[in-house]
Amino acid sequence: MGRLGENRWGKSEVRVSKIHRGDERDEFSDVAVQVLLTGDVGAAHIDGDNSQVLPTDTMRNTVYGLAQEHLTDDLEGFGSVLCEHFLQRDAIESASVSIKENRWARETATGFIGGGSERRTAQVVQDTSGGGSVSAGVDGLVVLKTRGSAFSGFPRDEFTILPELDDRLLATSVTADWVYQPVPADTSATWELVRGLVVDSFFGEWSASVQHQGWLMAETVLERVPEIAEITFHLPNQHHLPFDLTRFGLENEGTVFHPVSEPYGDIGLTVTR
Amino acid sequence: MGRLGENRWGKSEVRVSKIHRGDERDEFSDVAVQVLLTGDVGAAHIDGDNSQVLPTDTMRNTVYGLAQEHLTDDLEGFGSVLCEHFLQRDAIESASVSIKENRWARETATGFIGGGSERRTAQVVQDTSGGGSVSAGVDGLVVLKTRGSAFSGFPRDEFTILPELDDRLLATSVTADWVYQPVPADTSATWELVRGLVVDSFFGEWSASVQHQGWLMAETVLERVPEIAEITFHLPNQHHLPFDLTRFGLENEGTVFHPVSEPYGDIGLTVTR
Amino acid sequence: MGRLGENRWGKSEVRVSKIHRGDERDEFSDVAVQVLLTGDVGAAHIDGDNSQVLPTDTMRNTVYGLAQEHLTDDLEGFGSVLCEHFLQRDAIESASVSIKENRWARETATGFIGGGSERRTAQVVQDTSGGGSVSAGVDGLVVLKTRGSAFSGFPRDEFTILPELDDRLLATSVTADWVYQPVPADTSATWELVRGLVVDSFFGEWSASVQHQGWLMAETVLERVPEIAEITFHLPNQHHLPFDLTRFGLENEGTVFHPVSEPYGDIGLTVTR
Amino acid sequence: MGRLGENRWGKSEVRVSKIHRGDERDEFSDVAVQVLLTGDVGAAHIDGDNSQVLPTDTMRNTVYGLAQEHLTDDLEGFGSVLCEHFLQRDAIESASVSIKENRWARETATGFIGGGSERRTAQVVQDTSGGGSVSAGVDGLVVLKTRGSAFSGFPRDEFTILPELDDRLLATSVTADWVYQPVPADTSATWELVRGLVVDSFFGEWSASVQHQGWLMAETVLERVPEIAEITFHLPNQHHLPFDLTRFGLENEGTVFHPVSEPYGDIGLTVTR
Repeated sequence: MGRLGENRWGKSEVRVSKIHRGDERDEFSDVAVQVLLTGDVGAAHIDGDNSQVLPTDTMRNTVYGLAQEHLTDDLEGFGSVLCEHFLQRDAIESASVSIKENRWARETATGFIGGGSERRTAQVVQDTSGGGSVSAGVDGLVVLKTRGSAFSGFPRDEFTILPELDDRLLATSVTADWVYQPVPADTSATWELVRGLVVDSFFGEWSASVQHQGWLMAETVLERVPEIAEITFHLPNQHHLPFDLTRFGLENEGTVFHPVSEPYGDIGLTVTR
Repeated sequence: MGRLGENRWGKSEVRVSKIHRGDERDEFSDVAVQVLLTGDVGAAHIDGDNSQVLPTDTMRNTVYGLAQEHLTDDLEGFGSVLCEHFLQRDAIESASVSIKENRWARETATGFIGGGSERRTAQVVQDTSGGGSVSAGVDGLVVLKTRGSAFSGFPRDEFTILPELDDRLLATSVTADWVYQPVPADTSATWELVRGLVVDSFFGEWSASVQHQGWLMAETVLERVPEIAEITFHLPNQHHLPFDLTRFGLENEGTVFHPVSEPYGDIGLTVTR
Repeated sequence: MGRLGENRWGKSEVRVSKIHRGDERDEFSDVAVQVLLTGDVGAAHIDGDNSQVLPTDTMRNTVYGLAQEHLTDDLEGFGSVLCEHFLQRDAIESASVSIKENRWARETATGFIGGGSERRTAQVVQDTSGGGSVSAGVDGLVVLKTRGSAFSGFPRDEFTILPELDDRLLATSVTADWVYQPVPADTSATWELVRGLVVDSFFGEWSASVQHQGWLMAETVLERVPEIAEITFHLPNQHHLPFDLTRFGLENEGTVFHPVSEPYGDIGLTVTR
Repeated sequence: MGRLGENRWGKSEVRVSKIHRGDERDEFSDVAVQVLLTGDVGAAHIDGDNSQVLPTDTMRNTVYGLAQEHLTDDLEGFGSVLCEHFLQRDAIESASVSIKENRWARETATGFIGGGSERRTAQVVQDTSGGGSVSAGVDGLVVLKTRGSAFSGFPRDEFTILPELDDRLLATSVTADWVYQPVPADTSATWELVRGLVVDSFFGEWSASVQHQGWLMAETVLERVPEIAEITFHLPNQHHLPFDLTRFGLENEGTVFHPVSEPYGDIGLTVTR
C-alpha cells in the first residue's frame, strides 16, 4: 500500500590513509569517505530484487582501489573520479561522495603530528605524614612516521600470520607521565623540554618495535632532565593495515592503508634510574 | 642509563561475536577482550630483540581461534583458557585477560535487542502562517537477528568480493521518523504501538536486503497506523564479518564474527501513502 | 555584497529531568530539547542589531520554566506548547522543537534502570608461579531513584553552598568488581545473583550518602555470596541539579532538574571480609 | 560483617577556564581538575555519619574559588595549593589533585585556536542528467577570543536573566561549507585561502553576536574568492559561563569561567551572492 519515496544507499566512514612517497620527503593523506547512491532500485525495496543494488562492500573496495592512483590533496578531484566511476553503471542515477580529511602537521620529512587531542597533565599527591609526589605528563599526543620503524624476528605459532616488516608506518597516541624529584623551578619550561625530547626521539630514532621506541624515548628524557626520577609510557599501536589491492587485479604499491580504531596493540612501560 | 621497570604488552578491544546455534533457538555472545602479557622481554626494549615478543596480532588471532570452541557465557572460563594458552610459552611470566560482554535482550528465538541507547523522539514545527508538522520517532534501537536475512543476486564488478549469502546475521541501529496527520489523541500509546510493529516486522519478516527489510517495516506501520502519513528509516548496516579461521588450520563453523564499527552500510528510505 | 539566505538560531541539548510525583509511585522524564527559530533578524546579521534576537539563554530558561507545568509523556504536546510560546513574539516566523527522551525501565515504585550501556565484565590473571585471580563485575549499570536518599550533616566552610537534603534524587552508573575465592561452579548464575542483589539494595535501602549506599550494597553481596572475598564499587554521582524557577516568578515545586554530565562526584570503596 | 578497605571521594571533570589579562596580550587557561580525598570517614560508610565528609560540591567550588588567585601555567603549583587547602581539614589524610590542560595555539594577542579536531571536507554530487555540485569546507575548527565580541540590546521577557555584555569571551567550533562555481584550479590552495580568511575575520572583526560574526566571515570570503557562490556556517556557541565567586566572599574579577558542553547556542546561516 505504500509508495517508495526518497531513498539512497552507500557506505559511510570508509577510512583510508595513503603515503605519497617522495625523494626527499613523504606526504600523508588520512581521509574518511562516504559514498551515497540513488538509482532505479524500487524492485530491491519492494520485491527483494538485488540485481541493481551495487553492494556497499563494493563501494568500499572501490574507494581503496581508486585511492592508489587518484587520492591526492585534491579531495574534490578524487570525489569526482569516484562519482564518475559509479555513474557508469546504468541503474545509478546520482552519486554523492563526501570526504573528511584529518589534518596532520609536518614535523620531519617523514613525520607528522596529528589531531588536536593533546593535553598537558599534572598530578600532585600529598598526605598528612609529609609524603606525596608531583608528576607531569602529556596525553593525546598523536604521532605518525612513514619510515623508521620495523617489526620482525618475533616468535611464530599457529595463530601468527603477521608478516615481518623491515620498514613500516608507525602511529601512536603518546601518554607519558613522569615523576619529579625534585620539582623543577619552572614546570612549564620543563614540560616543553620533555615534550620536545619525546617528539624528537620518536621521529629521530629508528625502532625495532613499539617497546623499543618507548625505551629510546625514556632514555632520552632521563638523560637530559635530571629532575625526572622515572617515566611511564602508554603507547597504543594505532594500526594502519596495508590494504590488499591484488584482489581487484591491481598491483600493491604499498601506499594504501586501512586505519583501524580497534583492536589496538597495547604497550606500556616504566623506566627508572 | 635507565632501568626497565614494570612493563606489559597486549591487545585491547578485540571484538568478537559468536552465534551459539541451537535446535530451537540461538544464543548470542558479543564481547570485547583485552590480553596483557608480561615476561622476559627486557632485550626487546633495550636491544630491539623481538625473539620473545609474541605479536599482539597473534594475541588477537588467538582470541578468535579459541573463541570458536571455548567462548560461552562462562566468561571467566574463556579467560582461563586464554591465560593458560599464553602461559605455555616459555618467556611469558603472567597473563591478564579482561572481557566485557555487551548485554542483548532476547526478543525471539533468533532475535535480540541490544544496547541501551534507545530514545523516543518528537519534533514539532510551526510557523506564523498556520503551517507546521508533528513527527515522532525512535533512535538508537539496536536490533540483531541470527537468521532470516539474505543478500544475494547483486551486480558484480572488478571490486566485488562479497560472497552471496542466503542466510546471514543482520544487525542495525534503527532510526525512524514518522509524520502524523492528524496527531493521534494518545501520542505515547501510538509510539509504543509503532515501536512494537517495527520490532515485530524486523524479527518476523525474512528480508533480501536492508532495503527490503526497511520497506517491510514501513509497510507494516502504514497499514496499521492510519495517523501516519509517511515514515523514514535510517538503517546503518552494523557489520559482523565472518572471521576466517582456516588460516590457522581450523575449520570455519560459521559462528565466529568480527563486529566492526566502521565502515558501515548506510541505507535510508522514505515510504509515503 | 552578500545576501542573507536561510538562517536560524536556537539552543541545543537543553537537558531536563522531571519527577512526576504520584501517591503510589513516581514517573520520571529525562529529555534533551532543541529549540530552533527563524524570523525577521536580517538586521542582526548585517548591522549587529539584536533587538529581535531572543537570546538562546532565554530559550533554555523557557524550556525549564514551561517544563514544570507542561512536560509529560506527551512529548509532542510539550513541543506544541513551546512552539506556541515562541510564536507569540512578533519577529518570530517559525519555531521547531525537537525532543529526545531517554528511556528508563521501571524497577520499583520510585526506582528506574536507565540506558543500555550495561556490560558484564570478567578478569582472569595467572602467572607462572601458580598465582592469579578471577574477578567478575558489571559496568554501565545506570540506576536512579526519586526518593530514599539523603545528604546532610556534612561539614561546611567558606566554599560550601550545598543545601542539606533529607530526601533527594540519586543517580549513578554502577561499576562493581568482585574477587572470587573460590570461583563458583556457575559463573553466569552467580553474576545474575550479584547483579540482582546490587539492584535490590540500591532501590531497597535508604542511604545517607553515596558512600553509605555503596557500603550497604557491598554488605548485602558479601552476606549472600560466600565465594566473594572482596568487592569494589565505583559510584559516580550523576547530579540532577534542582533548577531554580523563582527567578522567573514561578514557584519551585521541586520537580524540575538539570542533569549535568560534568563535573560528577567521584566515589570509590572496597569492602573485604 | 564486611571491613572497609581502600576508599576515596572527590570530584572529577571540574572544568575551569581563566583569562590572564595582560597589557598587550591575554593568556588563556583551560583545565579539567579532579580532586580525590581519603580520610577518617569509616563512620560515613558504615553509619551514615557525614560529619567528616567534605561535600564534593565544596571541592568543586574550592577549585573555582582558588583558581582566581592561583591558577597559572604552573599546573603543579595550583595542584599543591589545592592539596594544602584540603589537608588543613583534620579528618583528611591525603589529597590527590589531577589536572588536564587543553592546549590552545595563540593566533592573535587575544585569539586562540584550540583542539585538534579540525578537518578539511569536500563533497561532490553528480547525476546522470549532467547536474551536480562541488563544495568544500571545514569542520571542528575551534576558535576562541577573549575580547572583541558583545551581546546586548536583545529583547527581554519573563524568562530572560542574561546580562547585557559589551565585551565577552566568544568561542565556537566552526563548520563551514561553500559551493564552488566554477571549481578552482587548485582546490588545496583555495581551501587554505578560505580557512585563513575565516580565521582572520573571526579574530579581526568585532561582532555584536554570533550571527553578526558569521555574516562578517561570509562577507569576507565572498568578497575575496570569486569561485564561491554561497557559504553556509554552523556556529555553535560554546559557552564559558562567568563563575560567581561573590557567594564565597570573594570579589569577581571577571577572569574565571565554567566552560559547559551542553546546552549550546545553535546558530546557522547561509550567505549567497
